[in-house]
Amino acid sequence: MSDLRIDELVRDGDTAPLVAWLRDSTVLEIVDELTRLDPEDTAVAFRLLPRDRALDVFEALEPVDQQQVLDGLRADRVRSLIEALDPDDRARLFDEMPAKVVNRLLAQLSPDERALTTVLLGYPEQSAGRLMSPEFVSLRASMTAAEAIDKIRHEGLDAETVYALPVLDDHRHLIGILGLRALVLAPPSARVGELMTTDIHQVTTDVDQEVAARLVREAGLIALPVVDSEARLVGVITVDDALRVLEDEETEDFALAGGASPLRTTYLAASALGVARVRALWLLLLIVAAALTVNVLQIFESTLDEVVTLALFIPLVTGTGGNSGAQASTAVIRAMAIGEVRLGDLPRIVWREARVGLLLGLMLSAAAAVPVSLLYGGDIGLVIMFTLILVCTWATTAGSALPLFARRAGVDPAVVSAPLITTLVDASGLVIYFVVAKLVLSL
Amino acid sequence: MSDLRIDELVRDGDTAPLVAWLRDSTVLEIVDELTRLDPEDTAVAFRLLPRDRALDVFEALEPVDQQQVLDGLRADRVRSLIEALDPDDRARLFDEMPAKVVNRLLAQLSPDERALTTVLLGYPEQSAGRLMSPEFVSLRASMTAAEAIDKIRHEGLDAETVYALPVLDDHRHLIGILGLRALVLAPPSARVGELMTTDIHQVTTDVDQEVAARLVREAGLIALPVVDSEARLVGVITVDDALRVLEDEETEDFALAGGASPLRTTYLAASALGVARVRALWLLLLIVAAALTVNVLQIFESTLDEVVTLALFIPLVTGTGGNSGAQASTAVIRAMAIGEVRLGDLPRIVWREARVGLLLGLMLSAAAAVPVSLLYGGDIGLVIMFTLILVCTWATTAGSALPLFARRAGVDPAVVSAPLITTLVDASGLVIYFVVAKLVLSL
Repeated sequence: MSDLRIDELVRDGDTAPLVAWLRDSTVLEIVDELTRLDPEDTAVAFRLLPRDRALDVFEALEPVDQQQVLDGLRADRVRSLIEALDPDDRARLFDEMPAKVVNRLLAQLSPDERALTTVLLGYPEQSAGRLMSPEFVSLRASMTAAEAIDKIRHEGLDAETVYALPVLDDHRHLIGILGLRALVLAPPSARVGELMTTDIHQVTTDVDQEVAARLVREAGLIALPVVDSEARLVGVITVDDALRVLEDEETEDFALAGGASPLRTTYLAASALGVARVRALWLLLLIVAAALTVNVLQIFESTLDEVVTLALFIPLVTGTGGNSGAQASTAVIRAMAIGEVRLGDLPRIVWREARVGLLLGLMLSAAAAVPVSLLYGGDIGLVIMFTLILVCTWATTAGSALPLFARRAGVDPAVVSAPLITTLVDASGLVIYFVVAKLVLSL
Repeated sequence: MSDLRIDELVRDGDTAPLVAWLRDSTVLEIVDELTRLDPEDTAVAFRLLPRDRALDVFEALEPVDQQQVLDGLRADRVRSLIEALDPDDRARLFDEMPAKVVNRLLAQLSPDERALTTVLLGYPEQSAGRLMSPEFVSLRASMTAAEAIDKIRHEGLDAETVYALPVLDDHRHLIGILGLRALVLAPPSARVGELMTTDIHQVTTDVDQEVAARLVREAGLIALPVVDSEARLVGVITVDDALRVLEDEETEDFALAGGASPLRTTYLAASALGVARVRALWLLLLIVAAALTVNVLQIFESTLDEVVTLALFIPLVTGTGGNSGAQASTAVIRAMAIGEVRLGDLPRIVWREARVGLLLGLMLSAAAAVPVSLLYGGDIGLVIMFTLILVCTWATTAGSALPLFARRAGVDPAVVSAPLITTLVDASGLVIYFVVAKLVLSL
């Protein structure tokens, strides 16, 4: 695969080896190569897939890539692909499409499939209701294991998973969960009610997808039941869908950690202009924030004029403040993202980070004191020492508190990420630096 | 749960409400609270758990927390907990313990369990062999569905999963995979060989855990077969274990993205000194790298002395270079982490990032030109314009190339993360700034 250049084959229209490769590769390998191609080439290669593999590959693609493929296909194939998708995957694809196209495609679906999709599309975006599969097999506590297996045989083909089976009472309320494994291992006459576990996790349809997905991962679930406002079961979220949500979320957090908006496509498939677009806004915002440092320095211009040596340490002071602030904010953002830290922990965290900053500042200033004093004199050495201690303490304190304040204000904490902290700490770090310098050097 | 302060109950020795809470909460809720406690309190609370829940909670804890709990228990309970763990979880816990303790615990295990664990411990750390479960149920192609289900009934209790069943030939080579769902849905007389899928994924024991775990996620597997060097099946990696590896890896990447080593415990459980320790080395490294900027500025000290206004823009220039470099490196590191980008893509990526940098530089300089020219004169405005264009182009190019070079050198690309790129770009950005200034201002 690595020596075969799929993109060159597609571009040269070299069909024979391409068809052979598409036949012999796994679905994952094909998806992997397709998403590395230019968008137009993706559709070209997809058309060469054997019919029976085409659906598997299509299901494994991201919605942006699915759309690209659909754009290059004839109307009847578009309809058969859309019809074959699971309702939740279909809703996810429709989210990316213009309303007009969605309505046309919905009209072409069979009444059953249309109804399922319309229900899902009725839930708010990013909610558990959108993510869940409405097709599941449910059991009754009074059933025997044999009856339960019989029900799965009849209804299990359409369901997205039958590995975790919800057990319902007469009001469709969830009273337990039974794993298919326990069911298979049990004697045929055993009752579902005795086999099921009642240590169950569930979410309501309006819960955020990320919260639901995290619960799936933390509790090691294969499927998470979703209930409506009256606690009646309406769907299940499967582990693979939960993983996809978590991966998307993490990709977004990483983009924000670098000071950019997330790309809506794979990195290689994006154009230079597309990449520049997701970064431009952040970079502009950060340069506006950096303008503050120009103002701060202007206030101290006479000090600078008097002791130009002070200018030499400007990047070192801002850099160190930025880095220690970035360490603190990244740690807090990550701890919040995986649910380790809550708003109520704010005092405890800020108090600890202040001590961490003091420790780090003491250590750095101890390391810097001798070389700086030797090269630039003891006065400057003293200035740098005090500055590093104060800047580190301040930077870790601010860096840990800001993500928590962002959460309280209803903003994604990942937005208050390293680049923003760095830029904000720059200006305040410079104030600390020059005030210390004026005091120590008696300017 | 949120109004009940578990930590206070433990500290006050208030046993009654604590016991009630431990009885009524889910395993996940208990684990969640236990890992937020101080290490000693964790052991105290654990001892109050009812016997039947204790194992579930223990299994769900991270190895560092498991160790903490074991330290507070009597020898016989330690042995029964260790004995009850799955072999792969046991190997993972042993990795964290001193060799002497491990040998003592191994000696107390039953011969069967000891043999399973010893085999796993024989594989290199971080390898698929360490992660896999050696207890699985395998099928033969010639079996009927009824016979297969019968075999699962007899052997399935010990296996970590029976949802994806490997099908083997006479040489224990993997020839297919059969899902339990397909098996249950099939007529009892159907042959396993007809039901199984041959579109299978597998890894060898020496493959990196992260690679194996990513394959599980990408291909949406419930279990991934692991084979030895002669392609014989020796174990399976289950989806929950794979997820844990991915979460650990992502936590590590996030720590590195903030310029720190990963914490080996949860954020809240760590002490100020513990947190400072994982950050100190990186911060020292970064401040040494930042010393380069002091040297660069010293070279241009006479220029600075002549036009002190140039000093005002130092943080803006280094900040903007750092931010655009961080955007590029974060994007490339993430794309590599999820397998979107390979080494061979280097020329394509660097060429695109150079164009992205140019675009961003043009945009930023257009935005900065007017205000800077008005406030500090056209000459300075021109210097800033040219500097921003060159610095952005250089920063994105370097920021995208360095993680790929790191991978080629066998270093984790996440190490060459935003803070390091930022610090490295600072010095080169200043050179660009002062050379441009000298040329434009004819100094």
